[in-house]
This record gives sequence, C-alpha cells and structure tokens, in this order.
Amino acid sequence: MTSVGIFGASGYAGLELLWLLQQRSDIEIRFATSDRFAGRACADLHPGLLGCFVSHNIGLDTPCDVVFLATPPDASKGLVAALPSARIIDLSNAHRFDDKSIYGLLPCFTSEQRHAQLIANPGCYATAAILALAPLASLIEPSVIIDAASGTTGAGRRASEDYSLSELHDDLFAYKVLNHAHTPEIANALHALSGQHFEVTFTPKLLPIRRGILATAYARLKNGDARKAFKEYYADQAFIRLEEKAEQVRLRRVVGTNDVLLHIAVDDATGRVVVQSALDNLLKGAAGQAMENMNLAFGLPRTTGLQGLKVQS
Amino acid sequence: MTSVGIFGASGYAGLELLWLLQQRSDIEIRFATSDRFAGRACADLHPGLLGCFVSHNIGLDTPCDVVFLATPPDASKGLVAALPSARIIDLSNAHRFDDKSIYGLLPCFTSEQRHAQLIANPGCYATAAILALAPLASLIEPSVIIDAASGTTGAGRRASEDYSLSELHDDLFAYKVLNHAHTPEIANALHALSGQHFEVTFTPKLLPIRRGILATAYARLKNGDARKAFKEYYADQAFIRLEEKAEQVRLRRVVGTNDVLLHIAVDDATGRVVVQSALDNLLKGAAGQAMENMNLAFGLPRTTGLQGLKVQS
Amino acid sequence: MTSVGIFGASGYAGLELLWLLQQRSDIEIRFATSDRFAGRACADLHPGLLGCFVSHNIGLDTPCDVVFLATPPDASKGLVAALPSARIIDLSNAHRFDDKSIYGLLPCFTSEQRHAQLIANPGCYATAAILALAPLASLIEPSVIIDAASGTTGAGRRASEDYSLSELHDDLFAYKVLNHAHTPEIANALHALSGQHFEVTFTPKLLPIRRGILATAYARLKNGDARKAFKEYYADQAFIRLEEKAEQVRLRRVVGTNDVLLHIAVDDATGRVVVQSALDNLLKGAAGQAMENMNLAFGLPRTTGLQGLKVQS
Amino acid sequence: MTSVGIFGASGYAGLELLWLLQQRSDIEIRFATSDRFAGRACADLHPGLLGCFVSHNIGLDTPCDVVFLATPPDASKGLVAALPSARIIDLSNAHRFDDKSIYGLLPCFTSEQRHAQLIANPGCYATAAILALAPLASLIEPSVIIDAASGTTGAGRRASEDYSLSELHDDLFAYKVLNHAHTPEIANALHALSGQHFEVTFTPKLLPIRRGILATAYARLKNGDARKAFKEYYADQAFIRLEEKAEQVRLRRVVGTNDVLLHIAVDDATGRVVVQSALDNLLKGAAGQAMENMNLAFGLPRTTGLQGLKVQS
Repeated sequence: MTSVGIFGASGYAGLELLWLLQQRSDIEIRFATSDRFAGRACADLHPGLLGCFVSHNIGLDTPCDVVFLATPPDASKGLVAALPSARIIDLSNAHRFDDKSIYGLLPCFTSEQRHAQLIANPGCYATAAILALAPLASLIEPSVIIDAASGTTGAGRRASEDYSLSELHDDLFAYKVLNHAHTPEIANALHALSGQHFEVTFTPKLLPIRRGILATAYARLKNGDARKAFKEYYADQAFIRLEEKAEQVRLRRVVGTNDVLLHIAVDDATGRVVVQSALDNLLKGAAGQAMENMNLAFGLPRTTGLQGLKVQS
Repeated sequence: MTSVGIFGASGYAGLELLWLLQQRSDIEIRFATSDRFAGRACADLHPGLLGCFVSHNIGLDTPCDVVFLATPPDASKGLVAALPSARIIDLSNAHRFDDKSIYGLLPCFTSEQRHAQLIANPGCYATAAILALAPLASLIEPSVIIDAASGTTGAGRRASEDYSLSELHDDLFAYKVLNHAHTPEIANALHALSGQHFEVTFTPKLLPIRRGILATAYARLKNGDARKAFKEYYADQAFIRLEEKAEQVRLRRVVGTNDVLLHIAVDDATGRVVVQSALDNLLKGAAGQAMENMNLAFGLPRTTGLQGLKVQS
Repeated sequence: MTSVGIFGASGYAGLELLWLLQQRSDIEIRFATSDRFAGRACADLHPGLLGCFVSHNIGLDTPCDVVFLATPPDASKGLVAALPSARIIDLSNAHRFDDKSIYGLLPCFTSEQRHAQLIANPGCYATAAILALAPLASLIEPSVIIDAASGTTGAGRRASEDYSLSELHDDLFAYKVLNHAHTPEIANALHALSGQHFEVTFTPKLLPIRRGILATAYARLKNGDARKAFKEYYADQAFIRLEEKAEQVRLRRVVGTNDVLLHIAVDDATGRVVVQSALDNLLKGAAGQAMENMNLAFGLPRTTGLQGLKVQS
Repeated sequence: MTSVGIFGASGYAGLELLWLLQQRSDIEIRFATSDRFAGRACADLHPGLLGCFVSHNIGLDTPCDVVFLATPPDASKGLVAALPSARIIDLSNAHRFDDKSIYGLLPCFTSEQRHAQLIANPGCYATAAILALAPLASLIEPSVIIDAASGTTGAGRRASEDYSLSELHDDLFAYKVLNHAHTPEIANALHALSGQHFEVTFTPKLLPIRRGILATAYARLKNGDARKAFKEYYADQAFIRLEEKAEQVRLRRVVGTNDVLLHIAVDDATGRVVVQSALDNLLKGAAGQAMENMNLAFGLPRTTGLQGLKVQS
C-alpha cells in the first residue's frame, strides 16, 4: 500500500488526480488539501469522490510515501522547501528543467523516476508538443512551430468575467503569443533529446470547450525517414497511438483517457513535416501523467490505474 | 431628433441598446454611463460602437428627452428618485406593476406610453411567458406552468467561477425553483389582461449558450377556441410570428432579431394547451422592447430601428 | 462466466453497452452486430473497444446466455420472433408494457428480472420522468406535466442535415409536442405504480450537446408529505441521489455515470410539486440500465460493472 | 437600380448573400435559385427573407446586370459557359487564378473589377491567410505556414453523420493536411503580390461552432519593418482593423460583420513573424466580399450595404 497526499486537490487537475487515486485499492490517500474548500466534502466539487478537503497545514503535518503538488508554481516552490524529506511529484512549472528535479515526460524520459526525490510533471501543452516532435528531434532543423488549442480547464478555476461562458462561448483566440511559459520547456526537452538547440515558436489558443488539446507541430526534415522514426520510437509504448489519417487525431477520441493520438504528414518534395497531437489536458497533460510518474517511482507498471478510462463519447 | 441617455450601458442589455440607438439617425445619444468602464471606448466591449463610456455623475448632469436605465433594481430606484422630471424607461424589475409606472409589454400593453413618464420595461422571461399566454388569459383555468431556458447573457456580466465556461459548458440546470422574481410579474400581467388571479409556477433553466429564451407554457382551456384566439390576438402584430410546427419555434430563428416565435398545440380531448415561445433575451427581452417603448413614447412607429436585424444564422 | 451478444452495437447506446460489457471479466461477449459496420474494428467507432462488428446473421447463429437488442423497434420485434428461446433485453420501445415482457425500470420494477425471458428496457426520457414521479404516484392528482431536454445522442446516429452541427448548434426547440412515443410508457408506469390512470403531458426538447437529460415534472399533491415520500422511496437505492438544491441536479454531474440526481420542491400553499431529474441518456437512460437488468436477471448485485464510472468533469 | 441573380442561393453563403442584397434599396433581385428548395419560401431557411427559391432554368432564362454563383465548382464552370454574356461573380474556386477571371481579394486586388466580366471571389481560408501576409509578401522568406480553424458552415450544408452535432460537438481536428484546395490560391496570391514563389504549408481545422475563421500565419522576415509595413498597407482600408493585442483578434468580435481583425507579433531576435487573422467565413470570407466586388464592378463605394452589420455578441 502506497500512501499519498495531494496539495491543491480542488483545482481541475487536482480533482482529476484525486479521482484516479481513489479508484485504486493499492493507494491510501492520507490527505487532499484545498485552501478554499477545506472542510467541505470532495463530492461537492466532483460527484463520486469520497472524503473531505483539509487545510494546507494538515497536509504539511501528515507524512506519506509521495506528495503531489497540484498547486501554482509559487506554492509548489514553498512546499518543496517545506518538505525536504518528502518524495514529490510537482504538476506546476516551478521545477521543470532545474537541477533539483527530473523531468517526467513519458515515455521520452523514463529512466530516473525510480530513485528521484522530485519529479517535475510536464506541462499540458508541452506534453502535446514534445510527443509530436521527440522521434524527429535529431532529424529536423532546429526551428519548429507549434500551434496548439486547449479547452478552458487548462487555465484552471477562474472567477473572472473574461472566462465566463458569456465571453468565451463560440470564440477562439491566441494568447501569450511569443511569450508562453511552456516555450522554454519545449525547447529544453528537444535539446535534451537531440543535443540540438531549438528555436521554438509556440502559439496557444483558447477553445470554447472544457477539455482537450490539439497541437500541430511544423518542422523541416534534414535527413532520415520521419514516418519510420515515428513508428520505431513509439513502438509498443503505452498510451501512444499513431493514426493513419490526420482526421482521426481529434479531441473526442482522447478526452477522458490518458491516450495521446499522433499523425505525421511529410511533404517529400520539401521536407516539410506536419504532426498532429491530441490529448486530454487533465489526464495525459496533468493528473494521468503524474500517476504514470508515481507508478514508475514505485516500480509499478506505468499503466497501473490508467487503463479502462472511457472516452467521453 | 430625440436625445437619449443610457445608465448602465456596459452590461449586455445596455450594450445592445447602445448599438441599436447608434444605428439611428434620428437619435442623439447624449451619454452612456458605466461605473466600471467610464473613460474607455465603447468599442472595447463591442466592436463598431462609437464614443466612450462616461461616469454616473455625468449622466445625472446631462438632460435629455428620455433616459434608459439598464442598471440593477436598486440603482434604478435611486435614479428614478434622482431624476424626478426625466422621462425614463427602466429595464430593471424595480418598478414593474407599481403605481408610478406603466408596464411596457408589447403588443399587450400599448395604450399609455405616449404620455408615460416612467415605463417599466418587462423582464426577459416574463416577456416570453406572457406573450405565450396573453391571447388565452380569459379562456384558461387560472393555473399555469412555465418552463423556460435562457442563455447566460440573461444573468448579466459575472466575474464568478460559477458562470465560467469550465463550469457551465455542456450543462443544464434549473434555478430559483418556485422562487424567481419574474413569477409575480407574469401573474400580474395575466391578471391585468383577464381579471383572473393566476397561480403561476415558473421554472427557469440556464442554457450553455449566450443568447435566447425558449419558454413552454402549459395551461388548461376552460372554453373557446385557443388557436383562433391566438390568430386574432396577434393578427398583424409586428415582431410576432405564429408557426405551424413547434419545431420552428427555435432559438436560432430569433437570436439577433426582435422577433417572437410562437406555436400553440391543443389536446382537444383534455383541453391541455402547450405553447412554445422563443425570443432573444437581449432584444425583445430587453433592449429591443425598450426601443419599442421609446418609439411609442415619442409617437413613432413601434418598429422604428428594429427591422432588418439579422438572425445569427 | 455469462455469455452475451449485442444486436445493433454500432449505435450510440450499443457502443456504450459494448464498452461497459468489455470492462467486465465475468462476461464473455460472443458477438456485436452492425449492419453498417460489419467487418470493421469496433475501435474505429469508439477508441479502446476490442474486436470487430459482425453481421446480423452471425448474431442469429450464435447462442448465448442473454441477448441485448440495441436495434430500432421493428428490428427488435423481428429478433424476438426469430430467437424464441433466448433471454433478451430489448432497449427499443417495441415491447414495453406488452404482455410478453417485464418492464425493467429500476429501482421501481425489480421483482421479476430473475426469471424473465424478455425484459423491456425503459426509454431514456421515460426513465427520467418516472423516477421523478414514482414516489409520489399515489399522492398526486393523476395529471402531470413533464418538460425534458435531451442531448442529441438520444436521437441516434443521423445522416441528416437537420442534425448537423451547423443546424443544431446554439439552438433549442421542442419536438413531437403532445405526440412523443414515451408518453404512454410514462402513463403506464405511473398507473402500474399507483393504480391511478394518469393524463401525461410530455414535451421533449433537443439540446445542442451530446449527452444528458434534464426532466422537470410538475404535479399537484392530493395528500401526504411529498419530501418524506421521496426520501423513503429512494432510501439506500443504488444510483439515486436526492439533492438539497435544484441547482445541483445538473447534467455535468451525471453525464458519464449511471446516476440519477433528483430534487423535489413543494409549494405548501398550493400543493404544487416540481421535481428535477437528471441522468445520462446513454447510461441510466439506455446501456447502464440494461446492464442493471442483466445483473438482476443473473442474480448479481444490480451495481455490478456500473460503479466507478467517471463524470465528464 | 442594379439587377442581380443568385445561383445556389440556399447554401449558407448564398443565403447570407441573399439577405445582404435584400437589405439594399438600390438592388433588384431577379432570381435566387435552389435545386433542392425551388418553390419554397426563402424564409423557411432564414427568417426574414422575402420571396421564393426558383429553379436553375428560371435563372438561366432571366437576364440581369450581374449573376452571383454560390454553387459548387463544377456547377460554376457550367454556368460560366452557359452565360457567355453575363457579368459573373463566382464564389466557388472554379476560376481563381485562371486566365478568364480577375481575382477579387479586397483590398489587395482592387483595380480591375470595374470592367471585369468574371470575378473570382476568394476562398474563406485564403482570404484570412492572404490578408495576414499581403503587407509582408516582399519582406519575408518565401516559405510560410498557415494554421487556421473554421466553423462548420464553411463546409456547406451536409447531410452526413460525420457532420452531425453528435459527432462534431466538443471536437477539433485537422483535415486535408498538405492537401487543401486553398493552398495554391494562397501561393498564387502571394506570388502576384511580391513576385516571389512561395512554399505554402496550410493546415485547416474544423471548429465545433458555426461561423468564423481564425488563421495564424508564420513567416520569417528577410528585411524591413514588419509592423510599419502592416500599418501602411492597411491604412484607412475599410473592414480591416489592426489590433494591439493578439487576444483581441477573436471570432466573437468579427462573426456577423464583414470585418477582418489582424495582429502582428515579431520576434526581433529571430525575425519570426506571427500574424493572427480573424473573419466571418460567410461574410468577408464569402458573401460580404462578393458584395464588395459587386460594388466595385458597378462603381459604388466598396462598403455599400456592408456597414452597420452587428457582431453576434
């Protein structure tokens, strides 16, 4: 029995993680904190959940085998400092590619989880982008473009008119153009995978739906067979499915699961490569991948607790 | 040239009214107030609008032929007291069926606008419900049920997580059951139209779209020919269209216009009557009807400035 | 190990049932037919499904312990005739309240499944409506109104412009007013539960979302304590949850689960009762309830295979 | 008074054009054909429209000053051949960049409409893409990427399960990757504007909403000041608005209008340029631009009949 605790369990990613963990009989959940909802039943926020949210301090005082941080970056930094002896999986971007943590993008970075004390769980957009380009990182020119759209849960709970349905419904727009926090994360990962220094142009867009990311990555092939590289790199990898048609890489086929769908198109005349990548931002993009990392950290199969999830058909 | 001012012009109904008024060459807009956006260009909130929002105090100090109040009820009460000599059209529910105002539900209550100093513009749900039942008010038993669903702009601008797209998308629920402020308004109007005292059961529901109300009214016929009463009552009435099929009374055929679509079904065996009623909550349900009332107040055709609006097809 | 077959497995309810059955280790699925997709992988229609659709004739030739019919009513009639010795659960409305079948609305009609040869699985709207009124059936006047809205999967797969996103998005309308096939089903069930002959007025509406039904039932209390009757009738009943607030009975809290949320409001002055009822039309409204019936037919707990489903939060 | 006829008036672009034309008092509409709806009232498809659809043959036999073809490409080719003396504006892609027609992308190609017999009205995606890149065509390397998402009306009326709301709702996917018919149109226009031969990589995506295109164009600056080039190229151009923030280039601010919103971001370190471009696919992307072309063809101001359209706020 592995004991776990969650800080920030009332956010969208935290709730998803809490639900995943509560389905498992091999996990004991010692606490799920929420500053805002401490004392209230978890089921108030998500039907079917057991137990109540507790305060931050109760979390700090309760030892467990692994702690998940589904908190904002500053809170994550504070918790890592406050819990020096805990094994931690941080879902925020506070520790990605720093020297304290390992980077848990799966299946690209799988070797060190077993002994890591701090695992930086990847960003949702970054996961979609990096999985689209990882097999090609050494074969392409080091300048890539990623155009990606996400449902609104990626922005977290927002008590803001700007995120109201009246303002966002039927809309679409780009934001943080040339300026999104996931851009260096993508560049760092591609560098780690290939040794090349990449120029990454990343444009995130807000979709008027709740869940799901569709990312399209554009690159130019220097040499090699891109399709073959894709098939070999992802051969027999859990949660990754290569599709024959771009039209099959669609949100409705991944939302509700930990899967990633990918499609690669190559223009042989020009070397232009266009990759589609779809995932659920709250599962593979956050809580699902965090559970994969926990599984590896404790020597379990990576897929434990993540199979049999249902697409929201 | 009629001069007008708008208090509360940055809300959804206020903006809609401002747009309608700016299209007219016979109207001079003297001010459009917004506590929150004073000093900012109106076009920031709605592309194509001219001018800037001004402060409440500028509105108070600027005389004009008619003042629209697109403010919350308490603010409307204060403004009516503060502007004793102004002609006022109040879009809030502060003055409906009080003894200071006339009730401007059109075409049911049309006789007094020409000389009224204070016109209480009807509520959006109430407009849909009353238009569904007005022709039958004397023919039915005085107990009716109204089940109505509205887009989220009916709730106004909301900086609240509860109204975020992440919470409301793909959802539907009833609220204020047996307890909505429009219930007595509907009962009062039906009483005024028939002399009967009505028991009104009204259930509002929140739809995950921006605009539009579909109301279904249930009544039981005491005597008379309900279909004929409908046709005669609404013969040649602007903005009212009787449809042959219930399926034609749908939001997409009214949103963006000042029209009301109606369908009546009668079960001849039981006398049960079921009426469908659809309108745009921001036009016929608010700003459009307010402009109809202004037109009547100044002796203009009721349809001035409200024709040629386009459904959001 | 119970062996099962599904006719009509490529429709929305059939796919949902196939997915539920494939999660169970105590079920052997012998066939899943589809006229249209025979020979194609089930995963083409719903990611994660195993196996291929087979032809109707293969289904006819393959014996199994129980056969599910997720077929249109005429096809269901033909299959019941063609399979005289099979135990059958029919999801269509071909056999509801006829003399060959038992009616499987759960938990209201639970006694006979163990020995039934033909179980008529209830309609989706009917399930929502009957569960809203069953505890009150003997306490109310026998005239009820049900106003219910459903997502589009309730209409099945449609290759029709009328059901295209371009036509239905952001829309809402009533259809089959005073004329829907579930109306007598509701009346029959209320009669069976109370002995009273009911006049049922039912208005279905099409929502621009995929899944979920919200039904509101209106009745008038003759005598008794409606709230108490509700609590007692549903005490400890699986899948039924009584909510304190009408606002909690909402689609997003049931879609993806087999749950039913209910809320009752009573106007003590008039005896008017308003009940909210929400469920997922493909689970409790179709495939989930069919699996409940199968469980009872084979002496299993009613909840087997239906717990731990996740709301589409 | 200019007399006009429309072939294919019952499609989404045709209906939009018919509505625009019916608002004008200087236009006489001689016919609006529809193979499928001939004999039916236009108001059946779009409330507020006058008249009835007529057959193809009536269109062929009715002379008028200008004929609009809102027909599929093959039908457009046949009509151009069948009407050798008519002035024609073809909304299909049958004649774009052939030697019979002029290309009517406005304001980039404005000189020849006055005397043209055949005007090829641009594609919706192509309009968004070309307007995003036209000011830069001579300043950038001739290799561009365009990632664009469109509402479903861009695909026309579809009686197909694939386009049903049940299949498309909450979804997003790319289609015709490296293979869309608008790709050479974009390349041809950029060549005509700059003399450079462009490699165009274009990825269209289907959004689960009705109207609107958001296109993002990626280029690399060779020399010059991209922001200044933008401001100068579009100075005082009707319908074009340059926004300060990418977040302001959003569908809800253009849908329902003939406007195009643009935003340019430049990474000065790398020369990477990212342009956002938003328009309504049925107005600026089809019927609105066709009316602009008609205005120019008859010596009228380009904006006639296209001002005062309302965003679908």
